[in-house]
Amino acid sequence: MKNTVAIQGIQGSFHHIVADNYFANSLEVLPCETFDALVSQLLEGKTDIAVMAIENSIAGSIIPNYALIDTNDLQIVGEYYLDIQHHLMALEGQSISDIKEVHSHPMALLQCKEFFKMHPHIKLVEARDTADVARKISEENITGIGAIASEKASGLFGLPIVAESIQTIKHNETRFVIIQKINPEKSEDESKNKASLKFELSSKRGSLATVLNVMSDCRLNLTKIQSLPIIATPWKYSFFVDVTFEAYSDFEKAKSLLNLMAENFKVLGVYKNARL
Amino acid sequence: MKNTVAIQGIQGSFHHIVADNYFANSLEVLPCETFDALVSQLLEGKTDIAVMAIENSIAGSIIPNYALIDTNDLQIVGEYYLDIQHHLMALEGQSISDIKEVHSHPMALLQCKEFFKMHPHIKLVEARDTADVARKISEENITGIGAIASEKASGLFGLPIVAESIQTIKHNETRFVIIQKINPEKSEDESKNKASLKFELSSKRGSLATVLNVMSDCRLNLTKIQSLPIIATPWKYSFFVDVTFEAYSDFEKAKSLLNLMAENFKVLGVYKNARL
Repeated sequence: MKNTVAIQGIQGSFHHIVADNYFANSLEVLPCETFDALVSQLLEGKTDIAVMAIENSIAGSIIPNYALIDTNDLQIVGEYYLDIQHHLMALEGQSISDIKEVHSHPMALLQCKEFFKMHPHIKLVEARDTADVARKISEENITGIGAIASEKASGLFGLPIVAESIQTIKHNETRFVIIQKINPEKSEDESKNKASLKFELSSKRGSLATVLNVMSDCRLNLTKIQSLPIIATPWKYSFFVDVTFEAYSDFEKAKSLLNLMAENFKVLGVYKNARL
Repeated sequence: MKNTVAIQGIQGSFHHIVADNYFANSLEVLPCETFDALVSQLLEGKTDIAVMAIENSIAGSIIPNYALIDTNDLQIVGEYYLDIQHHLMALEGQSISDIKEVHSHPMALLQCKEFFKMHPHIKLVEARDTADVARKISEENITGIGAIASEKASGLFGLPIVAESIQTIKHNETRFVIIQKINPEKSEDESKNKASLKFELSSKRGSLATVLNVMSDCRLNLTKIQSLPIIATPWKYSFFVDVTFEAYSDFEKAKSLLNLMAENFKVLGVYKNARL
């Protein structure tokens, strides 16, 4: 079995691009309709590894995905940054004036709304998946309808790009994480220089500052911090924090201190920093 | 003119509930289709005040709304927490077996998906606005279709609730902020004990810890922190931070220190903490 990687969406989706780039095309993708389904594939052992979007430069953290990783005790074993570019595509020979409707995911339609303001003859219709519309147009030879999808989808389904990079905000960088059920090698690999942590603190004055001082003393650099109120416990917060470090021993030291200082301290993953 | 408050969505929306509760029904709501439209109403002087969802316990911060406040130099002058409860409603006399389709916003459908798994005879159809579906069912006397909306929408449009609180996660608390174009009274009102701040820092080790130490020394309590990478400037981050304090003078002191320490330090608003 195996040699697959679970992705959210179908072939041609942005998750597919990340899987191919990260694993140098060595794994076959296992399409999953939702992030819940993707996690189920991992938990049920249908695959060993999955790619999951975790934050983007427009919308910030995808909190439900952090929760999926945390509650199912999954491990982050890698990360990948992708600049999301939405292209308008249609069947060969179709020009923008031939396109009467564009079907796509509500989020993609939203991100491209300025472009469509310039083309008011196009009716926007919500669909479940961006790449799936491209597949359908191609397979069923549908004229008059356009899809918003990736360059990969354009290539896979043979749909020429009618308009390039039509998203309103030109830089929409999304961070994806590579996740597994368990971290097979818990080795202190020197190439691992980034970690994702989670802990809880009360809103007592200075409690977060104290924790960050320890991290700083241990020579960890903070690259992300996100607080979330714990609904069941007023005045208590959970924090998702990413840190980078030069020496793994520094991280080990911080880990043992944080274990003592913060409640429910947990390492969500230790992996190689994709930003150099 | 005036005596209105701009809300996102129509009458019966969760924004409407917040506006009525916060202003004790004293202001007429001005419905806006999008958050962009809502901000335009403020900027163009069509109204003096608006209600805007800013974060929730499931999805976290609504980053695009933080950006709208920040880039348009709006001021947060108040906050309100609402526990979002989704109810299934339909025309008088309709039972759940009569309902063949439920039309609602994709996010509402997603939040209620476990409920609909138990009622597989119901087809889910995406719509633009939750309350608007309720209005339409009522006005056009449509049978066979249900809406997912608030108790307020049920009352406003005379649609009985068929099933209560059908959202999967029972506590979905959303924080709303009250925003204005400028803060009319910059008075040092003793009742103001919370502030929303924004600043930028490089990822230099310990830079955030240093800032948080200052806040702690000035007796500010942190209730929220959120980092966002600044795409145009690698290794630089902006931070959105909420703090509470007992003495306004403590906040004033922290403000002058942070002005010196952090880049592009900005007070997004000073207001009364809604959590006591």
